[in-house]
Amino acid sequence: MYDRLKGFRDFYPEEMAARRAMIDTLEATASQYGFREVGTPALERTQMYVDKSGEEIVEELYAFTDDGGREVAMTPELTPTVARMVVAKQQALTKPIKWYSTRPFWRYEEPQQGRFREFYQLNADIFGSTAPTADAEILAFAADAMTALGLTAADFEFRISHRDILGGLLESMGGDVDTRAAIRAVDKSEKIERAAYHDLLVDAGLSREQAVEFEALLENGDLDELIEFAGTDRVEAAVENLRAVLAAAEDFGVREYITLSLETARGLDYYTGVVFECFDSTGDVSRAVFGGGRYDDLIESVGGQPTPAVGVAPGLAPLSLLLQRAGVWPEEALSTDYYVLQIGDTRSEAARIVRALRERGHVVETDVSERSFGAQLEYADSINAETVVIVGEQDLTEGMVTVKDMASGDQAQVPIEAFPGDHEAPRLADFE
Amino acid sequence: MYDRLKGFRDFYPEEMAARRAMIDTLEATASQYGFREVGTPALERTQMYVDKSGEEIVEELYAFTDDGGREVAMTPELTPTVARMVVAKQQALTKPIKWYSTRPFWRYEEPQQGRFREFYQLNADIFGSTAPTADAEILAFAADAMTALGLTAADFEFRISHRDILGGLLESMGGDVDTRAAIRAVDKSEKIERAAYHDLLVDAGLSREQAVEFEALLENGDLDELIEFAGTDRVEAAVENLRAVLAAAEDFGVREYITLSLETARGLDYYTGVVFECFDSTGDVSRAVFGGGRYDDLIESVGGQPTPAVGVAPGLAPLSLLLQRAGVWPEEALSTDYYVLQIGDTRSEAARIVRALRERGHVVETDVSERSFGAQLEYADSINAETVVIVGEQDLTEGMVTVKDMASGDQAQVPIEAFPGDHEAPRLADFE
Repeated sequence: MYDRLKGFRDFYPEEMAARRAMIDTLEATASQYGFREVGTPALERTQMYVDKSGEEIVEELYAFTDDGGREVAMTPELTPTVARMVVAKQQALTKPIKWYSTRPFWRYEEPQQGRFREFYQLNADIFGSTAPTADAEILAFAADAMTALGLTAADFEFRISHRDILGGLLESMGGDVDTRAAIRAVDKSEKIERAAYHDLLVDAGLSREQAVEFEALLENGDLDELIEFAGTDRVEAAVENLRAVLAAAEDFGVREYITLSLETARGLDYYTGVVFECFDSTGDVSRAVFGGGRYDDLIESVGGQPTPAVGVAPGLAPLSLLLQRAGVWPEEALSTDYYVLQIGDTRSEAARIVRALRERGHVVETDVSERSFGAQLEYADSINAETVVIVGEQDLTEGMVTVKDMASGDQAQVPIEAFPGDHEAPRLADFE
Repeated sequence: MYDRLKGFRDFYPEEMAARRAMIDTLEATASQYGFREVGTPALERTQMYVDKSGEEIVEELYAFTDDGGREVAMTPELTPTVARMVVAKQQALTKPIKWYSTRPFWRYEEPQQGRFREFYQLNADIFGSTAPTADAEILAFAADAMTALGLTAADFEFRISHRDILGGLLESMGGDVDTRAAIRAVDKSEKIERAAYHDLLVDAGLSREQAVEFEALLENGDLDELIEFAGTDRVEAAVENLRAVLAAAEDFGVREYITLSLETARGLDYYTGVVFECFDSTGDVSRAVFGGGRYDDLIESVGGQPTPAVGVAPGLAPLSLLLQRAGVWPEEALSTDYYVLQIGDTRSEAARIVRALRERGHVVETDVSERSFGAQLEYADSINAETVVIVGEQDLTEGMVTVKDMASGDQAQVPIEAFPGDHEAPRLADFE
């Protein structure tokens, strides 16, 4: 007997039914926003990830040399792949490009609650627009997807910030500040002690006084104060951009889900504008559920024409935790419209009923194991059949079948020509 | 700029829309048959495939050693994985177990028409029934899926055979016949010269006279003649089983798609009963489009309790070729219900209309690039918007919007409170 690999999961039908309901809701929302599905490979050249994230990324990858001598990696994220796809058809694609997909990714890291080595994400991205409305559309899609899943403003919030406010503020402090290191420190600030946070900022090039001042400015979150403190066009423009995104989010009806939070930074280096993270409002799911933001330089960095971009990537595992915590996780159960039960040599008549019901779009099972009445009824119960149609030799001689409602246990004889007859979804109640 | 790996594919939205339509149809049919979706890992232990197919399989795999020292392989097929899943919950699972999934698999082999290194399959399997009705249900599902895709009996046929007829026949010929080798020869018989086929049968242990006789028996395909020739209970039972499957297929309404063809053998060693392959009736797609069959010994061979199994696995690439050849490949085009066009500062009103239409389930886009009237209209056309709703400052002062039908080019002014108002899917015709 073989074991499953650590950090990988099997989804049996009941759990998969709930996951499928979640995925369908996310994808339906993406479709309604005009995001178009794309299909992408599971393997890419390892160099793509090294160029983006540095040589140290390799130890987090499922990377290997294929039989043709290529250095390849199982994709740890979608962004480099879609960037490659945009570049490959740069001229032919009408802007804005709005793409989505749902699929697994792989990272070799220690599994923990809600985090696996094989993990699934929906990615939704807009390429080709610098307008704040594009950022707001990503936020609106994400918020609408959450509410479509049954969540409310009491369950989640999007904490929003802006990379260029942080960068501009750090720049205005002068000296040799390592902006990337400082932003990574901000990203960690909620998870570490205050002193350790200050130490990281000092390591990044701030004086200790500046570190304290910087923290206070972010914590205070007064945008006018930030402009005044920095006194640069860069910070003023960034604040204006953030305010424009919030105004568009207001128009799009999702402002209530968004909280200004300058201490939200997103760890990844490639963000250039608005960044945001989704949090569990109750705090039960302590890490960010997912995040997103603007990354205007990435396409150019992989050899394309300058192409602005903004996106979001809900992970299914942390999202599942949030839905479970909020009590809106879809039911983990099989559902079956009809089980057509055969007694004696009635397969031919039973099969006719089965086909007629399936043609009407229903989920229908019948006996494929030549089992007894009792065994079939037990099976019908195990798959949560709503209605059992009993096709018995005795009944058939009278031109009848028996229709049984499984919830109530009630049943009645029905003329076989009336089942399904003109009924689209015949139930016992239709014959009483 | 990075290149895509050889044998891997990117699917852009238009092509993906057609693929999605195909996948949705296949999965809807599987659901109607009561197959339940499962989710499975992309990586398994390499040993699983070596044990099933021999050490030589490794060179066809994307196999490597992970950072934890595990020998792992990107899954080249689903069967060993679902067998592992069945064994892991053997006691808890109600029989019959009916599972399906659609996902990619990976094999390192030379790409050719309709065959890629990353390829997608829907797998549907029934575990826990030896009854011929289970084999017939797999055939019926596959045939119904094909007709649901728009194919007819003129487009495809299932060539059906039985491993135990072949095996029993070879056994009855006495001597040291290597049954597996002889069955592999049968599997190749349509692709090679007659003399070469006979040579393979001789290599497998038949005399040259027996090879000629064996070929004639299979080609003739007279089941009574086979029983008489072999004179064994084994062949008689196998013929009876095959006939029972065909009778059940008749009841299930799919007999017309099935042709008896004893020269169909399926290359894989693990089949034990009925085997079948789907062929393009016109012969334009010369290889088998897909195949399936009964494999009763596999679960036990991976450490489970004896569990009969039968399944089928349509590959999306060969199936796409067949649909294209038959002229029923879904249209490769974007579809959009509404584009809401903004002129001037009308985002707030436009956004209200967008939300109302999306709440009604429509695919709706609006401007996220702050573009001109002309550029927006061009974009609306590029995404095949059926209706454009023009929200202009001037119109708004009169409480009106303009509804434009993109097919005819006709348009009319409509009171903004009537759009969408009570309409579920408002079109220009509703206001004329």
